[in-house]
Amino acid sequence: MKLVVAIVQEKDSTKLQNQLNHQKIIATQLATKGGFLKAKNITYLIGIEDQRVKEVLDTIKEVCQARSQYVTPPINLVGSISDTSYPVEVQVGGATVMVLPMDNFYHF
Amino acid sequence: MKLVVAIVQEKDSTKLQNQLNHQKIIATQLATKGGFLKAKNITYLIGIEDQRVKEVLDTIKEVCQARSQYVTPPINLVGSISDTSYPVEVQVGGATVMVLPMDNFYHF
Amino acid sequence: MKLVVAIVQEKDSTKLQNQLNHQKIIATQLATKGGFLKAKNITYLIGIEDQRVKEVLDTIKEVCQARSQYVTPPINLVGSISDTSYPVEVQVGGATVMVLPMDNFYHF
Ligand code: NI
Ligand code: NI
Ligand code: NI
Repeated sequence: MKLVVAIVQEKDSTKLQNQLNHQKIIATQLATKGGFLKAKNITYLIGIEDQRVKEVLDTIKEVCQARSQYVTPPINLVGSISDTSYPVEVQVGGATVMVLPMDNFYHF
Repeated sequence: MKLVVAIVQEKDSTKLQNQLNHQKIIATQLATKGGFLKAKNITYLIGIEDQRVKEVLDTIKEVCQARSQYVTPPINLVGSISDTSYPVEVQVGGATVMVLPMDNFYHF
Repeated sequence: MKLVVAIVQEKDSTKLQNQLNHQKIIATQLATKGGFLKAKNITYLIGIEDQRVKEVLDTIKEVCQARSQYVTPPINLVGSISDTSYPVEVQVGGATVMVLPMDNFYHF
């Protein structure tokens, strides 16, 4: 067994939880802050069999990996030269994942 | 030393903390959610000497282990065929416990 | 890589976070309670290269270590023999730190 500790953006958390549920992977969530992903984020604790670690990593990467997004800012209401708002590229997502060895795992 | 990570039901948490205190076992609590125990739960981080791991596991098992409970639901106030409420069996408790190796432990 | 889990007093947390930022050490914070430091405390999760573990430990020790502080209690308003308040020595700070081995570390 391994313990996968994954720190992900709050906005990716619902989708990640749904995907883990779908794969019947049990994950415990902690509200955290700071770290590589500034501000509020969610840390997942996932106890998992060795042979499923890659599956967990693939899921986290697929759902959470850093990507560009085009966002159209609201039109500047206090007046600007142009009254048109252009989409800007922003980075969203990202995950920090640590895989820890485990001596034993129990369900009581 | 080992790090015992124990995820238990919120309703078993006070009793577990009291029992750990009684055994002079130091535990840090995190509010968590999801996982094997759905909804809100409490995760304990317990740094403990190798020879006391069994003692910690025994305490968690004794206090938190999944068990049946008979609960009498409130009488249906909006009207039902019978006005008697029968006890129903529900599962409560349960714990997920991970024992992790530790390289070093410090008190500053 | 190692995972450093550090439980520190809430009152030392801002200074510790600032110092870790200054050293470009990424740390994730969890609000926790109980443990060696009673009441509310902050647990840091720090994934760090082996050769920087000592640096992290030194920083935690320097910022958080248990120390005496002289505090002047407010003058007893309900009446006492003396109306002068003398400084009293109190213990503040302290940290519990666990260094865990890590199999793998990823940024997605
Ligand atoms: Ni599928
Ligand atoms: Ni006893
Ligand atoms: Ni410096």
